[in-house]
Amino acid sequence: MKFSELFVKTFHEAPKSEEARGAKFLVQAGYIHKELAGIYDYLPFGLRVLEKIKTIIREELNKIGSQEILLSTLQNPELWGKTNRWDIEKMDIWFKTELAAGGELGLAPTHEEPLTELMKSYIKSYKDLPVAAYQIQTKFRNELRAKSGIMRGREFLMKDMYSFSSSEAEHEEFYHKSEEAYAKIYERLGIGDCTYRTFASGGVFAKYSHEFQTVVEVGEDTIWHNADWSVVLNEEVMQDEILAEFDVKREELESTRAAEVGNIFTLKDKFSRPLGLEFTDRDGKKQPVFMGCYGIGVSRVMGVIAEKFADEKGLVWPEAIAPFKYYLVGIGENGMEKAAELYRGHSEEVLFDDRDLRPGEKFADAELIGIPYRVVVSDKTLKNGEAEITERKSGETRLVKLSDLTF
Amino acid sequence: MKFSELFVKTFHEAPKSEEARGAKFLVQAGYIHKELAGIYDYLPFGLRVLEKIKTIIREELNKIGSQEILLSTLQNPELWGKTNRWDIEKMDIWFKTELAAGGELGLAPTHEEPLTELMKSYIKSYKDLPVAAYQIQTKFRNELRAKSGIMRGREFLMKDMYSFSSSEAEHEEFYHKSEEAYAKIYERLGIGDCTYRTFASGGVFAKYSHEFQTVVEVGEDTIWHNADWSVVLNEEVMQDEILAEFDVKREELESTRAAEVGNIFTLKDKFSRPLGLEFTDRDGKKQPVFMGCYGIGVSRVMGVIAEKFADEKGLVWPEAIAPFKYYLVGIGENGMEKAAELYRGHSEEVLFDDRDLRPGEKFADAELIGIPYRVVVSDKTLKNGEAEITERKSGETRLVKLSDLTF
Repeated sequence: MKFSELFVKTFHEAPKSEEARGAKFLVQAGYIHKELAGIYDYLPFGLRVLEKIKTIIREELNKIGSQEILLSTLQNPELWGKTNRWDIEKMDIWFKTELAAGGELGLAPTHEEPLTELMKSYIKSYKDLPVAAYQIQTKFRNELRAKSGIMRGREFLMKDMYSFSSSEAEHEEFYHKSEEAYAKIYERLGIGDCTYRTFASGGVFAKYSHEFQTVVEVGEDTIWHNADWSVVLNEEVMQDEILAEFDVKREELESTRAAEVGNIFTLKDKFSRPLGLEFTDRDGKKQPVFMGCYGIGVSRVMGVIAEKFADEKGLVWPEAIAPFKYYLVGIGENGMEKAAELYRGHSEEVLFDDRDLRPGEKFADAELIGIPYRVVVSDKTLKNGEAEITERKSGETRLVKLSDLTF
Repeated sequence: MKFSELFVKTFHEAPKSEEARGAKFLVQAGYIHKELAGIYDYLPFGLRVLEKIKTIIREELNKIGSQEILLSTLQNPELWGKTNRWDIEKMDIWFKTELAAGGELGLAPTHEEPLTELMKSYIKSYKDLPVAAYQIQTKFRNELRAKSGIMRGREFLMKDMYSFSSSEAEHEEFYHKSEEAYAKIYERLGIGDCTYRTFASGGVFAKYSHEFQTVVEVGEDTIWHNADWSVVLNEEVMQDEILAEFDVKREELESTRAAEVGNIFTLKDKFSRPLGLEFTDRDGKKQPVFMGCYGIGVSRVMGVIAEKFADEKGLVWPEAIAPFKYYLVGIGENGMEKAAELYRGHSEEVLFDDRDLRPGEKFADAELIGIPYRVVVSDKTLKNGEAEITERKSGETRLVKLSDLTF
């Protein structure tokens, strides 16, 4: 894409309305626009990052046989009444609204109830199981405070997956596959080496669950780990009986700040029983379906990655999810001409800064926007038929023959 | 995809809860699931259709230089107050909700206000113009009645585009490009030959606008056209002065039922003036930006196409947006084996019915689901090294050499 054709620009100053460094840069570099606290718009750069994250998640979930669907935002109170989650006392993050034709509706903060109900049309027998379905959809949570940019939104993009099994053993098999898929997803997102599966509280669903936590200074959570990170516990489960279960002592564990980037829960029959999702087993007996749920905050993980890798100059995106892989700059008349020539036919992953600005301003924008590789052609580099490539992450520069350039 | 791996099934009976024929088939064939009137979930087939429609729209809008963004659902009343569209008396389709931290929010039924406000950060000078941005996003409209399936939802997927120009002439140029892009979109969606640009009322924005109307029996609108369809008018503009403008007489026009599948509006300064979106012109003078807006109901157009082409046996999708292009059936042991062999490596556009069902049941499902080509291999066809291909639309069958099959 040519920068001159984009409507976004970078701002000289970081916004005062954001507290987190990553969020400041995301606004300053034109990725997002704040509507209200916890409510953001995604501009072309930001949407490209989101789409790349979505593609990685989709590919890995499709591989484990999960099927993509799209459930509605507007929710029927009747369903949520059956699981005792409609009352604001039971679930305090509801946004509710009124139907003009009469009656209340909710904006879905999660989707266990409607999907469990929906599956009653499709799951009848053990032969129909196991099944898993996921969606990448906008969720709404009426948080009292929202000050972490897109890391914790009132409106945010989430991947939520639900599994339906005929037994605990069948469930465990899919649960394990989903753990592996999650590990691959974080690996491909560029945070595989700093993201850990942690043992966590089960919240309202179960006694325990697992979270995926990425080590990051601004994280809202504290996690505790042993020397080789083979045991990683969320703070809320640092109890004697659990330490004993993992055969570790409190003093062997160190703490660090981390941000949750995913969670997986065993739901058992918590939803299938009250909503009546049953199947006929091999013996002809009716049983409630054994369920699990699996979340990744898509916009949240984008925020965590922005925070995690940002430096004093701006954002630093992992290659796989950067809005563009290359930031192309031509210096001088020959350089601009050569850059334009290089750009043609390679537009998909190249952001060509064809604006009428000084090279220094373009270099600053390349750093602020955080494109992995800056490619510069100038009279000086062209003398030897070369381009200069600077890696954003390390700042290292090398010269590459134009004929060896593989955009 | 293998049918046995999908969680959806077709139902033997059409749902009583739907009135329109297309909507009945969409539920019966497992494309959508009704949550409440006007509120639907999209199952794997349905989501594949939506995604294909989205891709066609994206490709054509990107070609005219429009940039994709994603704006929030939750809306700040302050912005909509400035244009006098927050009050329920002025805009009666609002869903409103309360922020736990205090204050009201709305669920966006459209996005003129927030995008106009957002552009104040990016548009300063005539050099920044023209600009166009679009999104494909879920809209909410609190309709009193909703009984046309996904043709008229309370929650629906919409493509809304907005253009920003420095003059009426600059606006006209983009408006014309968008008309051409729309024509290409409907052509690619398979409704080019029955979709017309009509002259329509401008609603709250302007005196007149244009709509794109698809001729379909169940359409909610009446359009009037002359013999060669060079003049097509919405019913609400059938007034003497307008007929005179088009140089046609009332008795020269015939009426037909149609469904709106898109609209384009000239907004002038209706939003830029109250919200203060100004630019500095060549003479250094501040002027309000000249705007336009351009909509396509993505889920609506899916509903219209379903209604338009359905026959007594089920849905009939145009090739470009069918969930799969081929429905593969093997009959007998050799047929099943050959089908499995053909399927491998061609999974993307092939729905392989590998279920343990009689061929007649599979054929009925192929027709109900509306896949464009049914491909059958059996002992009989294999004797001559052939497959039997039946076109859903015409019902015509031909034999094709296996070596000539190009999935």
